Amino acid sequence: MTDTQHTRRLANAIRALAMDAVEQANSGHPGMPMGMADVATVLFTKVLKYDASAPHWPDRDRFILSAGHGSMLLYALLHLTGSKEMTIDELKRFRQVGSRTPGHPERGHTESVETTTGPLGAGISNAVGLALAERILAARYPSITDHRTFAICSDGDLMEGISQEAIAIAGHLKLNRLVFLWDDNGISIDGELSLSDSVDQLARFKACGWNAVRVDGHDPEAIEAALKATENADKPTLIACKTVIGFGAPTKAGSEKAHGSPLGKDEIAGARKALGWEYGPFEIPDDVRSAWAEAGLRGKAARRAWEDRFEALEPAVRDEYERRLHGDLPEGFSDAMAAYKAKLYAEPKEVATRKAGEAALAVVSQALPELVSGSADLTPSNNTFTKNMKAITPGDYSGDFVHWGIREHGMAGAVNGLAIHGGVLPVGSTFLVFSDYCRPSLRLAALMKLRVVQVFTHDSIGVGEDGPTHQPVEHVASLRAIPNLNVFRPADAVETAEAWEIAVASKERPSVFALTRQNLPQLRLQDRGENLTAKGGYELAAAEGTPAVSLFATGSEVSLAMEAKAALDAAGLPTRVVSLPCFELFFDQPASYRAEVIGTAPVKIAIEAAIRMGWDAIVGSDGGFVGMHGFGESGPYKEVYKTFGITADAVVELAKARSA
Amino acid sequence: MTDTQHTRRLANAIRALAMDAVEQANSGHPGMPMGMADVATVLFTKVLKYDASAPHWPDRDRFILSAGHGSMLLYALLHLTGSKEMTIDELKRFRQVGSRTPGHPERGHTESVETTTGPLGAGISNAVGLALAERILAARYPSITDHRTFAICSDGDLMEGISQEAIAIAGHLKLNRLVFLWDDNGISIDGELSLSDSVDQLARFKACGWNAVRVDGHDPEAIEAALKATENADKPTLIACKTVIGFGAPTKAGSEKAHGSPLGKDEIAGARKALGWEYGPFEIPDDVRSAWAEAGLRGKAARRAWEDRFEALEPAVRDEYERRLHGDLPEGFSDAMAAYKAKLYAEPKEVATRKAGEAALAVVSQALPELVSGSADLTPSNNTFTKNMKAITPGDYSGDFVHWGIREHGMAGAVNGLAIHGGVLPVGSTFLVFSDYCRPSLRLAALMKLRVVQVFTHDSIGVGEDGPTHQPVEHVASLRAIPNLNVFRPADAVETAEAWEIAVASKERPSVFALTRQNLPQLRLQDRGENLTAKGGYELAAAEGTPAVSLFATGSEVSLAMEAKAALDAAGLPTRVVSLPCFELFFDQPASYRAEVIGTAPVKIAIEAAIRMGWDAIVGSDGGFVGMHGFGESGPYKEVYKTFGITADAVVELAKARSA
Repeated sequence: MTDTQHTRRLANAIRALAMDAVEQANSGHPGMPMGMADVATVLFTKVLKYDASAPHWPDRDRFILSAGHGSMLLYALLHLTGSKEMTIDELKRFRQVGSRTPGHPERGHTESVETTTGPLGAGISNAVGLALAERILAARYPSITDHRTFAICSDGDLMEGISQEAIAIAGHLKLNRLVFLWDDNGISIDGELSLSDSVDQLARFKACGWNAVRVDGHDPEAIEAALKATENADKPTLIACKTVIGFGAPTKAGSEKAHGSPLGKDEIAGARKALGWEYGPFEIPDDVRSAWAEAGLRGKAARRAWEDRFEALEPAVRDEYERRLHGDLPEGFSDAMAAYKAKLYAEPKEVATRKAGEAALAVVSQALPELVSGSADLTPSNNTFTKNMKAITPGDYSGDFVHWGIREHGMAGAVNGLAIHGGVLPVGSTFLVFSDYCRPSLRLAALMKLRVVQVFTHDSIGVGEDGPTHQPVEHVASLRAIPNLNVFRPADAVETAEAWEIAVASKERPSVFALTRQNLPQLRLQDRGENLTAKGGYELAAAEGTPAVSLFATGSEVSLAMEAKAALDAAGLPTRVVSLPCFELFFDQPASYRAEVIGTAPVKIAIEAAIRMGWDAIVGSDGGFVGMHGFGESGPYKEVYKTFGITADAVVELAKARSA
Repeated sequence: MTDTQHTRRLANAIRALAMDAVEQANSGHPGMPMGMADVATVLFTKVLKYDASAPHWPDRDRFILSAGHGSMLLYALLHLTGSKEMTIDELKRFRQVGSRTPGHPERGHTESVETTTGPLGAGISNAVGLALAERILAARYPSITDHRTFAICSDGDLMEGISQEAIAIAGHLKLNRLVFLWDDNGISIDGELSLSDSVDQLARFKACGWNAVRVDGHDPEAIEAALKATENADKPTLIACKTVIGFGAPTKAGSEKAHGSPLGKDEIAGARKALGWEYGPFEIPDDVRSAWAEAGLRGKAARRAWEDRFEALEPAVRDEYERRLHGDLPEGFSDAMAAYKAKLYAEPKEVATRKAGEAALAVVSQALPELVSGSADLTPSNNTFTKNMKAITPGDYSGDFVHWGIREHGMAGAVNGLAIHGGVLPVGSTFLVFSDYCRPSLRLAALMKLRVVQVFTHDSIGVGEDGPTHQPVEHVASLRAIPNLNVFRPADAVETAEAWEIAVASKERPSVFALTRQNLPQLRLQDRGENLTAKGGYELAAAEGTPAVSLFATGSEVSLAMEAKAALDAAGLPTRVVSLPCFELFFDQPASYRAEVIGTAPVKIAIEAAIRMGWDAIVGSDGGFVGMHGFGESGPYKEVYKTFGITADAVVELAKARSA
């Protein structure tokens, strides 16, 4: 058997498992695994630095299946290379509740799945982040960081805008340890790709600063040669692999019919015949099994050599590396934050929370050298490039700030990739209104339970003159709607610092910040001995006497509530003010605490320069509301607040009317 | 004075107005208008088919300012060319509440502003839709359709993913009447563009099937030659205009300091001197004013000739053209829908609402030949390509369906452009979970009050095996959060038909549909004489006796509520069921109607296979809820429903517990 025949035989094991599992599930995508089986086999048996016995080894090469619908390719590879968890029974339970083999690969759910994919473009942007993380760590830990990132992507991946953003920044930053294997099969769900696309992909990649070559995706030698040629590349590389979707299926190969549904018994029998695969469903012959098992341990020697290098490091360096990798906070962190907050209490500041965020971030990032900040070309507005930071530039990754360009979605996807890699703590930033651009990646961060922080400034009609296109109205609510995402809208510099403390310690929940453009007074003036933001909501100011009115607010509207309280107190309506910087954390509290904070005042009013949705859970559906009911308007921000009736006077009036 | 000097003098009027208005507002972006003034002057005085006395003339060339932050360029052009509304006083009120000159251009707010821009990439994608609409109308009304679309775009526009999606589809479809003028100034907010970008834009456009040339953006002759060369192009064209941001400003030109804030008195004085512009703030000398006024009427002859051609058409053709342009429905429409619904009542069907949507869309699109459907490569899943439709292909625009490719955001932006153009009624489609990709464009559709319809199928955990990446959980809530957007989640084939009736008649509010993958029984079995969905919510089934329980549900969960009702009725708890296909329309109803529908049953339970957010407004914050509390899971959909406890049994149990 020639080497090519041998590779084909190993690849056919993938094909057979993919056909069988999809057939058994009566659901799934056989076409892509069958088409890319040869490419994946060459990658895993000849190139990828991978040790199935140590799936979390930090210096392993990363493999990303961006075309996540082809999940059976990944599951088959994991099974064949010897993942303990990925048994043949799990393959038989493909797409069943509770299995390790869900429809699309899910990080955290299945071992050795590096990232959750399926929404196209997500894997590509994650891969860019992973490749950048490797370069960043290589700049800090050169003797123990030397791995590559390979991603299989589809036609659909390349059509998505997020991908083009990520590709452009990867080319700009010269991420030369990144390789995309494009499944160039000319088929999409609608039919021939030519129905909707005529891009010259190689030329487009080259225009973005990539190497780009095309190979026959069913020629193992050509694939191997192309992969080997990337080893010393000075740029990222696209390898376009010309393939036949559903390779081997007698009537469906090369057609969209092979893409997204079971092939059917007859077609599978025909494919087995065409491929010369004479084994039953889920049956893997011993020679194939042992060859794959050997491939699964190809990286063992490299891993042991790495361990030796790791052990040779100074213990303090090793400890610090492991601390960063595990996402633990260093000993000095809480002291640094305590000192910063003590300074705030000593000298209260009237600043925008974006400026307060900058001051806190300077403290955080000095205490946490693993922090890597960045902005989608709003650096002077987002205030996320603190004085202690240095920009990462093409070829020099010793810095800790990324100029992402005007690529919000690509940034959010790559930031997820940085977090997935580990060893870095990524922070992105843009305007809150543009969180909409990032949304698919924010959702995936929440689903994957990643520690990422996104700083969204210019968080309401307080944006002022830029007008309704730039004034978020529904964004705080729609971000709160995403499960497992902490949305912080701090009221002053102290809450902003507290939110930072929580966010960087939040190992399994991403955080987003909604920060003001406009100045706000400091409301927290003395140390109350705990991080109050950690409870999500708390009584900021008690009523003098039995409360007649409870005011609930977040961010810039908390100071407005305090103004209203003064007027209402004076008018004989004892008023308390509750600050709610994070709904999610508040809802995580025991019912007794929530009830106590919500209180029993006969009048409850919510104040937020945003839509009402979500507030009924706090003030009740009959509670009062001072906020927005539609889009904003362009004008100086104080005028805009007046225009929409979001003022202390309006709160006072409403409270009085409801108390009457 | 040479022609070039003359053009420069006209351009300087734009520069001066931009400097002065930003200075007066103490807010805004002078750099782009000053940099692109020469290009815009050539376009408006030599090329653009435009008649300021008839700003809505259907066959005018379209001008899109995709770089919307440079709004003063557009406002200055409108003022100088003679827009009645755009007085010098309005320029003096730049960025003030209530002015016609908001921070970013707003369609519907300011006459002759073709589209709302500011969020980068939006204008580019709209322009692609406008150019496509022109081709579609030219295929139907060749003698009266012959105009072009010009868009000024920035570096930031070209970095955005949405733009790359739109550019690729424009190249594919050979939209040869589309021209982009790229303000190639090498500066972004963070500083030199080279901080974040090194794309060879011309090569990238060429790879996407465009012509691409570069000119000196301060050389009027070169600009004119490049523009004239596009007249008979066989592809869309990019003209890269090499410019100096803030051209004329003595110390800030060519730097990010000219981008986003007032230049200051001294810098403005220096710029006036450098430009040889010796007039006071907001002062336009007579020669310049009259030359611009003449340019504003350049299209008058063409417009009159067009009117002659229009008058020469058959009256019926004219009427039909105007009907389509005004977005009115034809006489036969309601009869066709009535006949379709009568058939549903006569032969009730158990079908998925995506299939019911297809059947309704077939009726709608046959009655409305202006309807142009499309899908982001999920045509066989979204069911939006009905048998009567034909695909639009490169060079042949006689069809009425667009294969958008896997470009959800580009699709949504281009669909907005189709609606903005008018004469077509655009419909897009993808999976509901991917509405997140479209979100910035959905928001702009709502802000612009466009009649667009987006069909989002696979609307819950009912997606089943594809798993949490493909199962929307928070999407219905987060879409409901967008102001001025009707979110329909119909319960059966009848409600789906009703939703279509409302959506196509909704001239000032876009509509999105959330439709199931899985089959649902038909619940509306007899004609109740009105479109009940138009009220947003209604009692589907009354209680037998005084209601003990009210169940509120949407979409696939309404049938589950009906099952629960049967069990509760049998258990002696008279139960009513309210269907709420559209929250927005329900909230539009009089309070008395809403109170009646919500009712006074002691137990209120909401049922939706999605998060609770938004439901408190219906059932109260103490109401019951059967739905999702986090992300979904991969498995056969009935299993998944059971896993998350969204079953009729769970509803019955909860209702009984609450009644006890």
